Amino acid sequence: MAIDHPYLMFLGDAPDQLAAKTARGVAHWRPEWCIGQIRLAGCQADLSLPDMTIDEAADRGARTLIVGVANRGGVMSDAWTETICAAIERGMDVASGLHKKLSDAPAIRDLAAARGRSLFDVRHPTRDFPLANGKRRGGKRLLTVGTDVSVGKMYTALSLEKEMRARGMKADFRATGQTGILIAGSGVSVDAVIADFISGAVEWLCPENEADHWDLVEGQGSLFHASYAGVTLGLAHGAQADAIVVCHEPTRPHMRGLPDYPMPTLEACVKAQLEACSLTNPGVRCIGAAINTSGLDEAGAEAAIKDAEDRLGVPATDPVRHGVARLVDMIEG
Amino acid sequence: MAIDHPYLMFLGDAPDQLAAKTARGVAHWRPEWCIGQIRLAGCQADLSLPDMTIDEAADRGARTLIVGVANRGGVMSDAWTETICAAIERGMDVASGLHKKLSDAPAIRDLAAARGRSLFDVRHPTRDFPLANGKRRGGKRLLTVGTDVSVGKMYTALSLEKEMRARGMKADFRATGQTGILIAGSGVSVDAVIADFISGAVEWLCPENEADHWDLVEGQGSLFHASYAGVTLGLAHGAQADAIVVCHEPTRPHMRGLPDYPMPTLEACVKAQLEACSLTNPGVRCIGAAINTSGLDEAGAEAAIKDAEDRLGVPATDPVRHGVARLVDMIEG
Repeated sequence: MAIDHPYLMFLGDAPDQLAAKTARGVAHWRPEWCIGQIRLAGCQADLSLPDMTIDEAADRGARTLIVGVANRGGVMSDAWTETICAAIERGMDVASGLHKKLSDAPAIRDLAAARGRSLFDVRHPTRDFPLANGKRRGGKRLLTVGTDVSVGKMYTALSLEKEMRARGMKADFRATGQTGILIAGSGVSVDAVIADFISGAVEWLCPENEADHWDLVEGQGSLFHASYAGVTLGLAHGAQADAIVVCHEPTRPHMRGLPDYPMPTLEACVKAQLEACSLTNPGVRCIGAAINTSGLDEAGAEAAIKDAEDRLGVPATDPVRHGVARLVDMIEG
Repeated sequence: MAIDHPYLMFLGDAPDQLAAKTARGVAHWRPEWCIGQIRLAGCQADLSLPDMTIDEAADRGARTLIVGVANRGGVMSDAWTETICAAIERGMDVASGLHKKLSDAPAIRDLAAARGRSLFDVRHPTRDFPLANGKRRGGKRLLTVGTDVSVGKMYTALSLEKEMRARGMKADFRATGQTGILIAGSGVSVDAVIADFISGAVEWLCPENEADHWDLVEGQGSLFHASYAGVTLGLAHGAQADAIVVCHEPTRPHMRGLPDYPMPTLEACVKAQLEACSLTNPGVRCIGAAINTSGLDEAGAEAAIKDAEDRLGVPATDPVRHGVARLVDMIEG
């Protein structure tokens, strides 16, 4: 799976900016790939990209229509189908982060087959993976891990890729969730593979590489999340990480979606993740922390970052406020 | 999913006893359900059950044909299809532990649909599961865990069920793999569910129950197995175990299928499993060890069992040689 760009971003009738969160991630991280947006009547989301029709986008070379928006009730309206089919007619592929598959909509599936276009349902792996073999492989890998879900693991991995490439280092972001896959143009939604093959899918995603090449593997879930930890552990084993960066949101009151489960401490999270990762790479170490301080003012953010550094003994930063230069210094050092 | 008995055991053209391992497990644990066996020309396996034809078995009341045998190369021969279709014609359901699905064979699928019979491909979950919610639930649960795969986790859980029921305790074996499902008549192949739903499937499998009721949950994999540990962790969280029994095979040279990975010590395995289980049940404790001494003589077995007791400080036994009475004493005590 490799999704062609440039992208035309389809926002449908998104009721607010949050519904277009996936599309916003793509537009933020790959502005050079996103040539425009297409919005239906009533759409309340906006990527600050030029609005254009399917025909205009096709004339400007758009290769893929990106459906990066949550739809209401999981049902694809006729208006959506019409827009998607028009894009296929004009020669575009379509990539979607929806739970509902494009390929389950007969009108879309049949038209894509007739026109020879590809449909990418990025939440749904379409290939089989081998069982993990645990064999040590060349190249370096860094895994972003977290105290909880939705604390900035994808953002941190992408920030590291950008900073490392700016320094001339060999670095590739490896996507494990739907937004990351649309940003990278490839990847595996690891939480959607068959359970036996979590680690095998990750070994496939970040294979052997040059000795000085870093894969920046997007973490998923948390070892302390009672719903998702199996995915997190399988990811840790498959990644064979040399380094981890721990991601944390200091104002969260409890594990997301689980009011009875307290957040782990940063120390407990790092300890558990290093133990998990060390099975397949005994040399793994924690090189830093990424603190999501979006819920804090400047003084609160400084205090939270200093607290993390004091507790873990490694550099901490908020990638959004302060970038990740200090983390990359650790990788280089 | 609930598979009706009595069973007619289909051994196909199994080249040796090992190929019929699943069928042997069913015949061993549910002799009262297995009224006969049916073997094709060249079959080298034998369950010591009466050989009978489809017609004879149907006349004696067989409700389900159990395909509990590995077939050569994953391909179903015409002779197999003929036998399976004959069973459907005579009103039987069919349950299979094969990787290859019965429902992918058009002749079998279409005939079952026409006759209103059920096909159970027990390796392949057919329903969706919710995400795990981690909420504490009533009833007691014991999870069998292991230093490695194939060390006796299913056998131990079934032995506990048998002993506890003999003592009048409320106890149900909960199957998580294909052989266990055919033995229990229901269950979930947890390594075959979508990764996000491992823990949710297990919560569904062993739901809230009476305060003095024990679910004996069949463990899978090992936290120390680089291919499967994600499944093992998700199972631990979903089971919300009050007690674990650690299963171990003391002569194994390395993790099965992974020559570079040493076996963990019993102590390390118990420590890691208790940590994992304590996320969803902080009261979890290890109540004993089940030592698979099939590779040892009597003196070696005694020594291995004593060694386990000395190291863990809980009763150890080989369920095959000595039964599990001492483990059930711990559960009762």
